[in-house]
Amino acid sequence: MGAYKKMTDDQLREELKSLREEYDKLCKSGLDLDMSRGKPGLDQIEISMGIFDVFTSKSDVVSENGFDCRNYGLLDGPPEAKRMMASIMNTTEDHVIVYGNSSLNVMYDQVSEFYSHGVNGMTPWCKLDKVKWLCPVPGYDRHFAITEHFGIEMINIPMNEDGPDMDAIEQFVERDPSIKGVWCVPMYSNPEGASYSDEVVRRFANLKPAAKDFRIFWDNAYAVHHLYDEPEKQDKILDILEECEKAGNPDMAIEFASTSKITFPGSGIAALASSINNVNHIRDSLKIQTIGHDKINMLRHVKLFKDHEGIKEHMSRHAALLRDKFNAVLDVFDEELAPCEIATWTKPRGGYFISLHVENSCAKKIVKMCKEAGMVLTGAGATFPYHIDPYDSNIRIAPSYPTPEELKKASHVLAVCTKIATIEKEGIKV
Amino acid sequence: MGAYKKMTDDQLREELKSLREEYDKLCKSGLDLDMSRGKPGLDQIEISMGIFDVFTSKSDVVSENGFDCRNYGLLDGPPEAKRMMASIMNTTEDHVIVYGNSSLNVMYDQVSEFYSHGVNGMTPWCKLDKVKWLCPVPGYDRHFAITEHFGIEMINIPMNEDGPDMDAIEQFVERDPSIKGVWCVPMYSNPEGASYSDEVVRRFANLKPAAKDFRIFWDNAYAVHHLYDEPEKQDKILDILEECEKAGNPDMAIEFASTSKITFPGSGIAALASSINNVNHIRDSLKIQTIGHDKINMLRHVKLFKDHEGIKEHMSRHAALLRDKFNAVLDVFDEELAPCEIATWTKPRGGYFISLHVENSCAKKIVKMCKEAGMVLTGAGATFPYHIDPYDSNIRIAPSYPTPEELKKASHVLAVCTKIATIEKEGIKV
Repeated sequence: MGAYKKMTDDQLREELKSLREEYDKLCKSGLDLDMSRGKPGLDQIEISMGIFDVFTSKSDVVSENGFDCRNYGLLDGPPEAKRMMASIMNTTEDHVIVYGNSSLNVMYDQVSEFYSHGVNGMTPWCKLDKVKWLCPVPGYDRHFAITEHFGIEMINIPMNEDGPDMDAIEQFVERDPSIKGVWCVPMYSNPEGASYSDEVVRRFANLKPAAKDFRIFWDNAYAVHHLYDEPEKQDKILDILEECEKAGNPDMAIEFASTSKITFPGSGIAALASSINNVNHIRDSLKIQTIGHDKINMLRHVKLFKDHEGIKEHMSRHAALLRDKFNAVLDVFDEELAPCEIATWTKPRGGYFISLHVENSCAKKIVKMCKEAGMVLTGAGATFPYHIDPYDSNIRIAPSYPTPEELKKASHVLAVCTKIATIEKEGIKV
Repeated sequence: MGAYKKMTDDQLREELKSLREEYDKLCKSGLDLDMSRGKPGLDQIEISMGIFDVFTSKSDVVSENGFDCRNYGLLDGPPEAKRMMASIMNTTEDHVIVYGNSSLNVMYDQVSEFYSHGVNGMTPWCKLDKVKWLCPVPGYDRHFAITEHFGIEMINIPMNEDGPDMDAIEQFVERDPSIKGVWCVPMYSNPEGASYSDEVVRRFANLKPAAKDFRIFWDNAYAVHHLYDEPEKQDKILDILEECEKAGNPDMAIEFASTSKITFPGSGIAALASSINNVNHIRDSLKIQTIGHDKINMLRHVKLFKDHEGIKEHMSRHAALLRDKFNAVLDVFDEELAPCEIATWTKPRGGYFISLHVENSCAKKIVKMCKEAGMVLTGAGATFPYHIDPYDSNIRIAPSYPTPEELKKASHVLAVCTKIATIEKEGIKV
């Protein structure tokens, strides 16, 4: 067996026949596998159980500035929580507001606020004929769902290995005043696992937008989510807020992060960071929206980690579990898919995803076949705005939830389906 | 001393002189009192400390339908949490979505969603020339802040002892299609402490709005917040959702509640209840906004209370503490203000506020004088839209946070200032 493109039709037909037999066997074996969402595994969840025991005395619920966090108040969050979230985003606490459990919700609220009230007093986007948004692709489906929900026209921007195609970004942003934003996952991006190079970050910070109310939505979801402990195997990115300030664009970026994939998904804390000016504007709206977020849960997280070193140690335990899962998938791909030369995939150093690129017009068919064999993948196209992958070639793989054993099985199913779809695309039938 | 209106100018001058002396003494005595916000006292906060110890085994974080609540999922919340919040709102769990820590935030999100996307697919309010809202007054300042934030024109509706003036509500709602909503606090209203009579609730349910997208925002903030344990001393209201359904208006009301004044303010859980149809629409937007709310915190609350009986017992402990605080204020008013016949005030059977009605054009002056004497009250006018009390006569008193001793002092200050302002309003000077 070898590269498919070097095989004759007869050889391919023979290969397809044995693949179809294997596929039928898989379909009958009662598989029930799920690689669809970036959901931490139960083994990862166990790491954070200590959070239930962090309060040992009543003084533990008093913040360092003497505020009893069991009561109303402190709209920004207690200072130690702001500092902790700042350390994750590599910024300082004066730039930070700590929120509830969901950074996605914070992003949604920002888009919603800009839609209804405009950016810092400028024209509300709902009063404009057209609002457009740049979407590096493949990207995060839930980002695209937000902008779609607000009727914002989304434009695909290709992702390179070091971040989005900045030539394209600059051309759109600097020429078209209806472009109001861009979705970025700058570290271990979803799903490509790419981290933005210093040059990319600086080019973002130095944009000269045609729209004064253009904003970079910098979703730093995987800021401390390395797969390896060795510093030289960890990606690093520049601080976008600092670079924007240096470039004379202090208000251009809004950064988001959460502990959803650090402690418990859905029961963590989220935060926003931006320029002091932006944070003041955001606080003005926020105080209409709520009296404050859950400060007890913020203190829980501070007590659990103590300091940034504590977060690093904690993340190292996640990494140990995740490495085995990523490797389970990558090993099968290397063994079963690599020789055929019909697909490429990312080998990320962090984050939650492996991005599989198959031949054009094959992704949907592969995902459908996998489903019929009892294995759920993220819907093909989900990583693109409007669920339209123009080449129908990208499949997002989320290896965190299943066990390594399950992942091996699942990856085998995926490899078999990928091979079948690739051969059948050539018109070969058994 | 007696009723001021029966006193001669000379007698009033003499009274004013001694009041001014007392006021000067109070100003110099270094008071630092706060009756401004409905913030539970530290003694109340202590009641809920058991919530930190509710998880004793790993199975405690699994919901009754077998879902591990430490991970993503269950957008509506676990069934036992839905049932618990339904019991507070006197409805059933199929009507309920459980949210994060703030019901105010849930109301804000609903107004925001209707503004940007419209009600159940109808025209977004941001696309209309004019949107108006009915505001029973005096009412909750944070409600009015939300509608003001969205540029919604607010119309004052007088409050009676059994709820808003329904003649006025019917006239506006049934004639003017630009009226899209009404703020209601149906139990122990903020700040009047009034509960809506059965007739008022039924007249709400039977409204025939000119606007199909008219919605009743039913903020049931004090649903279980009685001051007395005896059932005959507790207010009761009809279930608005059931009445709306009976009246053929199933989608007209959206109800809100939270545990903010049951467990920890800011670290509780909130919920929304409405018709199945509305809940389905709301869920459709909600799934764009977030992956889910903090289910661990929901389970914490369920474990703490076990059932509705547990909530009642817990609230009875709050009531015991709050009764003393309410009585501390009412006793001083009865003793110092009643004989003068210059003010009226509510004697609520639940909720968080006493509403003081002073003579016209006196409230602002009284609040200012109190502040100068070291005592903070809710700003005069805060209980009205745009902070404009047309008669300048309402003062909201929040007796929950200070101790009974502090409340006696504070009420004395308030009584002295009220007397001074009333006499000086007549042109009497010392």
